[in-house]
Amino acid sequence: MNIALIGCGGVGKALIQLLQEKEKQLMTQGLNIALKYVLSSKGGVYNPNGIDKADFFEFVSLERNVSIYPKGGNPNLSIEDIISNKDIDMLIELTPTNKDTGEPGLSHITQALESGIHVVTGNKGPVVLAYKKLKNIAKDNGVQLGIGCTTGGALPSINAGFMDLAGSEILSIEGILNGTTNFIIQLMEEKGINYNEALKTAQDLGIAERDPSYDIEGWDTAIKMLILVNVLMGEEKTLKDVKISGITGITQKDIFNAKTRGRKLKLIGKAVRDGEKLDMSVVLEEIDSSHPLYGVDGKNKGVRYVTDTLGDLTIIGGASGTKAAAASILRDIINIHKGYKFV
Amino acid sequence: MNIALIGCGGVGKALIQLLQEKEKQLMTQGLNIALKYVLSSKGGVYNPNGIDKADFFEFVSLERNVSIYPKGGNPNLSIEDIISNKDIDMLIELTPTNKDTGEPGLSHITQALESGIHVVTGNKGPVVLAYKKLKNIAKDNGVQLGIGCTTGGALPSINAGFMDLAGSEILSIEGILNGTTNFIIQLMEEKGINYNEALKTAQDLGIAERDPSYDIEGWDTAIKMLILVNVLMGEEKTLKDVKISGITGITQKDIFNAKTRGRKLKLIGKAVRDGEKLDMSVVLEEIDSSHPLYGVDGKNKGVRYVTDTLGDLTIIGGASGTKAAAASILRDIINIHKGYKFV
Repeated sequence: MNIALIGCGGVGKALIQLLQEKEKQLMTQGLNIALKYVLSSKGGVYNPNGIDKADFFEFVSLERNVSIYPKGGNPNLSIEDIISNKDIDMLIELTPTNKDTGEPGLSHITQALESGIHVVTGNKGPVVLAYKKLKNIAKDNGVQLGIGCTTGGALPSINAGFMDLAGSEILSIEGILNGTTNFIIQLMEEKGINYNEALKTAQDLGIAERDPSYDIEGWDTAIKMLILVNVLMGEEKTLKDVKISGITGITQKDIFNAKTRGRKLKLIGKAVRDGEKLDMSVVLEEIDSSHPLYGVDGKNKGVRYVTDTLGDLTIIGGASGTKAAAASILRDIINIHKGYKFV
Repeated sequence: MNIALIGCGGVGKALIQLLQEKEKQLMTQGLNIALKYVLSSKGGVYNPNGIDKADFFEFVSLERNVSIYPKGGNPNLSIEDIISNKDIDMLIELTPTNKDTGEPGLSHITQALESGIHVVTGNKGPVVLAYKKLKNIAKDNGVQLGIGCTTGGALPSINAGFMDLAGSEILSIEGILNGTTNFIIQLMEEKGINYNEALKTAQDLGIAERDPSYDIEGWDTAIKMLILVNVLMGEEKTLKDVKISGITGITQKDIFNAKTRGRKLKLIGKAVRDGEKLDMSVVLEEIDSSHPLYGVDGKNKGVRYVTDTLGDLTIIGGASGTKAAAASILRDIINIHKGYKFV
């Protein structure tokens, strides 16, 4: 399989390393991946015979400007070159998420699908804004669109909805889908510190961003829930359909009160079908030990589906970090290689 | 898709009903299932245009002898007829499990695969005894073998290993895979009754068999673990490789002692890779609330995988009963229809 990678940040780099580490194992499954292109915001690299993954990974570990890579670096390389060369089967789209426009990912994905190229992406923007449209383009062009990385990375929440619950109808979804907020809450519980201290600790550990609003205000959870709902329940919801509150108001007293009741506070995304309606929310909730997501602590994630014929299904885990996110991209690549039709 | 069903017990009947109930929904996914044959130990039914599912389900709900069904019943119908007619794409094999010989399922599955017919089965015997052989026959004949129902029914334990963990290596598996024993233990915990009383209650409720040895002695868990290990970890283990103990020795005192330590007793199947070795056991174990399977109570099931690149993954749930088992058969049918290559 010939692939191009757009976006060479943490996950992109981790993917290059993972593809190299897993090369032999993948070959035993009949999957021989040639990485022909890597494109970043500063140009890219093209090697029609496949970029040397180990060598290139070493290079990008030290140097951010991929276009000066001696074997095929090119400051003018563009997505248009990649498409017009017609020598790839799949595009891996890992540019940063823009939840308002979806760009530049949305254009990259659209162009690739329209040109009969499979796409696997970890970019939430295009998926939350335009999944249905992209799915139809993929269908019309006989190619696949893998989005498993967008809703919890290694947590197979999308896979579960497609494959593990195939043939059943999803009636509701509940998820703890944001590791950062879950980690902050656990810090407050365990260390008895207040919200600001816990946030600062999480930032110092590199778990929370310098501008943490996307996570702590509930946007990240809301977007992941929207993707699950639109993709798995056939909806076309947008952010304005979700009642969103984050964890910024949480106090030690809230934590203490929950604890004395044998409960834990969790930021829970919910989507519940109620006749024709679908109610969606992201709310801090007290749950007790009988709740299937009670054990989802720290950076862990979890999701629970209630279905008509396959009962309840709770999935917990999936490592966090760039390596695990890269592994979730590889998972989609393999499932598409194994013939699975997501669209 | 043209299918034949062999085995018309509880799950077989539930499947016929489910296929009828889901008919319209499946058609929207491009899956039009014609049930051409139903074969039981007393002959069968053949309708080249597809058996009327609603009508036939009503018939088999009242009458065990399918061969007297007025529209196509035939006391002499055999698997050989089904194979030689060459008019099906898939065989659903649901005859009772024989863990020593795998028959008659093993012959049915072998014949079908050799004739280029996909097979989906809920029959553990052939899978635990001959998965590798069957997989190779399927591969050689360009068809698929779906076995998702064999390791916990609705619990997508096999799917998870194939699809949700694609590209990662499974390092260990832990599972609560037998609902009957888990239910008996919970009864003892909640009602303060002894083992024999709890077993009797479970039998009266139809949850435990009249001869409960297969469940309570740990054989069922061991066989499910063997299937997971052989299918997902590429092993060729047999029952003699598993250290098996059941729940028959459990006392109120054990339950009480665990409870005072804040723990629960669970019958846990384990497979842990240790270098070249793979240690397998089915043992009653005390686990505390930090264990991912702590919340798996009653008839619920759960499995936890530890992997190299996708972290830990715990899957809990999946309804029990014939309807849920039938839904897990349908899940495999759909995933094969969607192009996924299990073998």
